[in-house]
Amino acid sequence: MKKIMIKDMPQHIGETVKLGAWLANKRSSGKIAFLQLRDGTGFVQGVVVKEEVGEEIFATAKGLTQETSMYIVGEVKADERSTFGCEMNVTGIEVIHEAVDFPITPKEHGTEFLMDNRHLWLRSRRQHAIMNIRNEIIRSTYEFFNNNGFTKMDPPILTGSAPEGTSELFATKYFDEDAYLSQSGQLYMEAAAMALGRVFSFGPTFRAEKSKTRRHLIEFWMIEPEMAFVEFDENLEIQEQYVSHIVQSVLENCKLDLERLGRDTSKLENIKAPFPRISYDDAIKFLHEQGFDDIEWGDDFGAPHETAIANHYDKPVFITCYPVGIKPFYMQPHPERDDVVLCADLIAPEGYGEIIGGSERIHDYDLLKARLAEHNLDMDAYAWYLELRKHGSVPHSGFGLGLERTVAWISGTEHIRETIPFPRLLNRLYP
Amino acid sequence: MKKIMIKDMPQHIGETVKLGAWLANKRSSGKIAFLQLRDGTGFVQGVVVKEEVGEEIFATAKGLTQETSMYIVGEVKADERSTFGCEMNVTGIEVIHEAVDFPITPKEHGTEFLMDNRHLWLRSRRQHAIMNIRNEIIRSTYEFFNNNGFTKMDPPILTGSAPEGTSELFATKYFDEDAYLSQSGQLYMEAAAMALGRVFSFGPTFRAEKSKTRRHLIEFWMIEPEMAFVEFDENLEIQEQYVSHIVQSVLENCKLDLERLGRDTSKLENIKAPFPRISYDDAIKFLHEQGFDDIEWGDDFGAPHETAIANHYDKPVFITCYPVGIKPFYMQPHPERDDVVLCADLIAPEGYGEIIGGSERIHDYDLLKARLAEHNLDMDAYAWYLELRKHGSVPHSGFGLGLERTVAWISGTEHIRETIPFPRLLNRLYP
Ligand SMILES: [Mg+2]
Ligand SMILES: [Mg+2]
Repeated sequence: MKKIMIKDMPQHIGETVKLGAWLANKRSSGKIAFLQLRDGTGFVQGVVVKEEVGEEIFATAKGLTQETSMYIVGEVKADERSTFGCEMNVTGIEVIHEAVDFPITPKEHGTEFLMDNRHLWLRSRRQHAIMNIRNEIIRSTYEFFNNNGFTKMDPPILTGSAPEGTSELFATKYFDEDAYLSQSGQLYMEAAAMALGRVFSFGPTFRAEKSKTRRHLIEFWMIEPEMAFVEFDENLEIQEQYVSHIVQSVLENCKLDLERLGRDTSKLENIKAPFPRISYDDAIKFLHEQGFDDIEWGDDFGAPHETAIANHYDKPVFITCYPVGIKPFYMQPHPERDDVVLCADLIAPEGYGEIIGGSERIHDYDLLKARLAEHNLDMDAYAWYLELRKHGSVPHSGFGLGLERTVAWISGTEHIRETIPFPRLLNRLYP
Repeated sequence: MKKIMIKDMPQHIGETVKLGAWLANKRSSGKIAFLQLRDGTGFVQGVVVKEEVGEEIFATAKGLTQETSMYIVGEVKADERSTFGCEMNVTGIEVIHEAVDFPITPKEHGTEFLMDNRHLWLRSRRQHAIMNIRNEIIRSTYEFFNNNGFTKMDPPILTGSAPEGTSELFATKYFDEDAYLSQSGQLYMEAAAMALGRVFSFGPTFRAEKSKTRRHLIEFWMIEPEMAFVEFDENLEIQEQYVSHIVQSVLENCKLDLERLGRDTSKLENIKAPFPRISYDDAIKFLHEQGFDDIEWGDDFGAPHETAIANHYDKPVFITCYPVGIKPFYMQPHPERDDVVLCADLIAPEGYGEIIGGSERIHDYDLLKARLAEHNLDMDAYAWYLELRKHGSVPHSGFGLGLERTVAWISGTEHIRETIPFPRLLNRLYP
């Protein structure tokens, strides 16, 4: 008999199949038991009718506890009432392992309890749906960049120097040297773009920041594309196409997951390029008009400012051309103004905050050297980076998208800790 | 005018297009110059005819130095003599930035010099070809697992405990706690497989090993699939299908790269499932027959042993069922013998060594607990891992494929340092 996965059941209507599955939930009467089965690829209802299966199998079905594992056999039947489209008419159950007192029940649990049991919490419907959406964002990210001429290049995690100083970095001994865990692969991606043209990275990054907010993780994943011969405007166009692609892919391929999470998908359907742009200057004016008196030109935005700006739009919004003083050393100056740089942050709608930071990069050797000096950065450590501007330097741009913030936004998850399988937070290194 | 990428030129025959490009090489006479152009997506020849372009543009072309960057305009012409299928009849050149004394010339350079200049060395044809093959292996890896019901799940890099003891681990302070960089995400992937069924990870791993061989990197990338309800044999079948898929994908999509590297592709064409299997017992016998007297039953294989075994086959070969004493604590015992476990290493042909290690995992709570104790592992640190066997434990299996060794094999690259953009080796943390 064919062993199949739940997700493939709609292609086997009328066939008798075998599933490896766990019991997610059940209800039963004296004559019929309804088993909510999960196998990681989906959820399906198994119907066990006493008259059909006999006393013994029916007793087994009625006795199944939450998370008990089994091989279960039955006929796949179309079922229009279920969102999934089919159910299983069970004819046999072989229990593999009985679960006793599974700690995460359908009732409410405290956050710390759930976090301590993250290895089990992942089995719940809600976490399962979020992980499916995360997976679809990853899949469609590769699809987008592979289809648009990008090469995946992996920057190193262990580095001898830090892109923007050594604060908030995890340090380790690298044999006899000091090394740090990467906060961003961008500088390496610039070298890669000079070699491969259009490149992207997708890997973990680390920030030893003592923040404890619903938007911060200590370890998180970033997508960092970098493109030679691409200037400021084209950089934004690629970003809006990319973000549109992942949102539309999730809408298309994760319908059941979005429904399970109660996500208002009407807010996502509209997320198609182009996205609005507002300059930093105008954003400050707008905030003043809205009554914010806690910010002035030259300050960076806080979460309430970003939310107020984002709420003015029904799509992600680019805030462009920030003051040079609040942005990193490597950003290309505005061609007509020396007080702002050619950068943009992309702010997600609905209060989910910044999901992308990007800019055109300085390509002039002398200017970059001056900026390194102004920022008191170690010239030896950055020698290779500076040298990229010595040999056929070209205008180039790039950006970084934070995976977990994007998952939070698209899935409608309030706290970022649920958007990664095993979150690393302040005071949270287990499991 | 359309700005396009070199890789797309064959779709623009007869059109006048604009490229952003660097000069890789050139040769010229008094009347004609042949520019070897690169833009990261490919290499193409630009032909500059003095009579057609006039004195000024021709002088510019003749004066171009290696790695000078430019926008270059011309008509795309079909050219049957070139492997690429077309060339550019140049009509205009706008130099962006002149490269002076690019250090990596077509002549021979020492390894340390090339490694110090890795950020520039990546621009060479050979490195470009290897990176393309690496990219295709990554792309086809996602394709395989996405198409076969797997969910990408990212295990944490920072962990409070170590899968197999704390030797060879990089340590860091995680605020007030001690943390280590992951050598493998496997244990976390087992938890993920109990939640999502079939999962895979693909991320960096770290081994603080003082090895300096052509097969070892300190930081390398691993693909680690883990599958619930999958036992020993099915695990091997999935592995051979996966490896076949990436080899055939590279053959199909990286023809020019393989050619540039001089790879003997006849050795790759044959790499299709199924792969041969030999038991550890028989492998020891075979080695003795071949005259190896430096190994006996119970010893692990060294590189010369693996090569001798691999040379007996024209496909990768699974060596199965190793002695329990030389394998990690979590491997499922053989059902009929307590001296060997249900594991297999996959050895690549042509002396490229082990590319996969995998096994069925212990699913019985008591047995796993006993093994943890035998190995003196900290029960508190592994509590969550052990607990997976308490709630609906199921037979499950997984494996880990080393990306860089696989790139080395498929691309025919002798030393692993060329298979990753910025290699981390003993004494090599720069650039
Ligand atoms: Mg910001
Ligand atoms: Mg081995």
